[in-house]
Amino acid sequence: MSESEGRFRLYGDSRSGNCYKAALMLRLLGKPFDWVETDVMARATRTTEFLAKNPNGRVPLLQLPDGRYLAESNAMLLHLAEGSRWIPQDAYQRALVYQWMFFEQYTHEPAIAVARFIVLFAKTADSQPERMKLLTDNGYAALGVMERQLGKTPFIAGDEFSVADIALYAYTHVAEEGGFELAASPAVVEWLARVEAQPGHVSMAEACR
Amino acid sequence: MSESEGRFRLYGDSRSGNCYKAALMLRLLGKPFDWVETDVMARATRTTEFLAKNPNGRVPLLQLPDGRYLAESNAMLLHLAEGSRWIPQDAYQRALVYQWMFFEQYTHEPAIAVARFIVLFAKTADSQPERMKLLTDNGYAALGVMERQLGKTPFIAGDEFSVADIALYAYTHVAEEGGFELAASPAVVEWLARVEAQPGHVSMAEACR
Repeated sequence: MSESEGRFRLYGDSRSGNCYKAALMLRLLGKPFDWVETDVMARATRTTEFLAKNPNGRVPLLQLPDGRYLAESNAMLLHLAEGSRWIPQDAYQRALVYQWMFFEQYTHEPAIAVARFIVLFAKTADSQPERMKLLTDNGYAALGVMERQLGKTPFIAGDEFSVADIALYAYTHVAEEGGFELAASPAVVEWLARVEAQPGHVSMAEACR
Repeated sequence: MSESEGRFRLYGDSRSGNCYKAALMLRLLGKPFDWVETDVMARATRTTEFLAKNPNGRVPLLQLPDGRYLAESNAMLLHLAEGSRWIPQDAYQRALVYQWMFFEQYTHEPAIAVARFIVLFAKTADSQPERMKLLTDNGYAALGVMERQLGKTPFIAGDEFSVADIALYAYTHVAEEGGFELAASPAVVEWLARVEAQPGHVSMAEACR
């Protein structure tokens, strides 16, 4: 029996917003976990050993206390928070949570997180101006969709804080690192503060370790 | 009171696999709906009228019988199928369904559906060989992840057919239209046949109208 049996184990890169989502959720729920730093840029997710755990070769990867694995950050949020106040009971409200989580992975993350990665870590923005222009346009479009919703409701899927807010917070709060100005999105800026005011909220640096 | 009150209304482009997902789900569930053909290439999703319904400017868009809207194809699958045999009751099995649905939107669709769009509809593959190479490599990587899973279990999230199979079927079954050969993925080919053998299965052309 291993020493860490009964605990979650989270494989993640501490610079990754996707990894932050799962770490923040575990901390909000008060579930102890072991963080396994997994350096994406050093291709630690593409080793034979890692691919045996997650054939898709990505972090975050969550190992449950019983040893089974779960991939995809938003799947982790939905699984970990099931039965908590962070997932609505009402069927339509729950559907809206799903909607915003798929929006995050399909529309928001591929623009905002990728722009941040290129600027901050790959440092190759200058050599690919056309791609950066596309990512920037798409990122501002995603922020515009959020701004419109957050002008109407305090949280992204409605009146209550949910896992959809955690999903969208992860990269929105560091969007400026990818070159995005949030000044033109005042409702988004106010929402970031509301998310950060949730009891138990911890920063990326505090969560991912 | 409108004539169509009490029915679902699905705004979709009949060439889109994402739209097919929702149409197929409604038909499998035996829920009648009105299909509203919405031509993406003619920018019918970017009109003021459409953006008032879905600020993200995309199809599919589902209007529920009570008039409320839901966007994001996989959110529709999860919402429509809630309580049916297509969503597992077991918490971990359900989490795996989420996992594969986020894999579909983040890893599979942006490669395989986009390659198909470029080849079949935009017809601009020849003018962007580098992008096509990247989409092709990423698409085969996604098919490889599916092949590995489907070599172990008959359906993508385990022993039972689920909404995750519908999500991944939508663009996998037309992957060859984007230039992908499925011959090297025999487990995927067998799975396509298993999905098509589900009672009530209808083709894209039959579903999207």
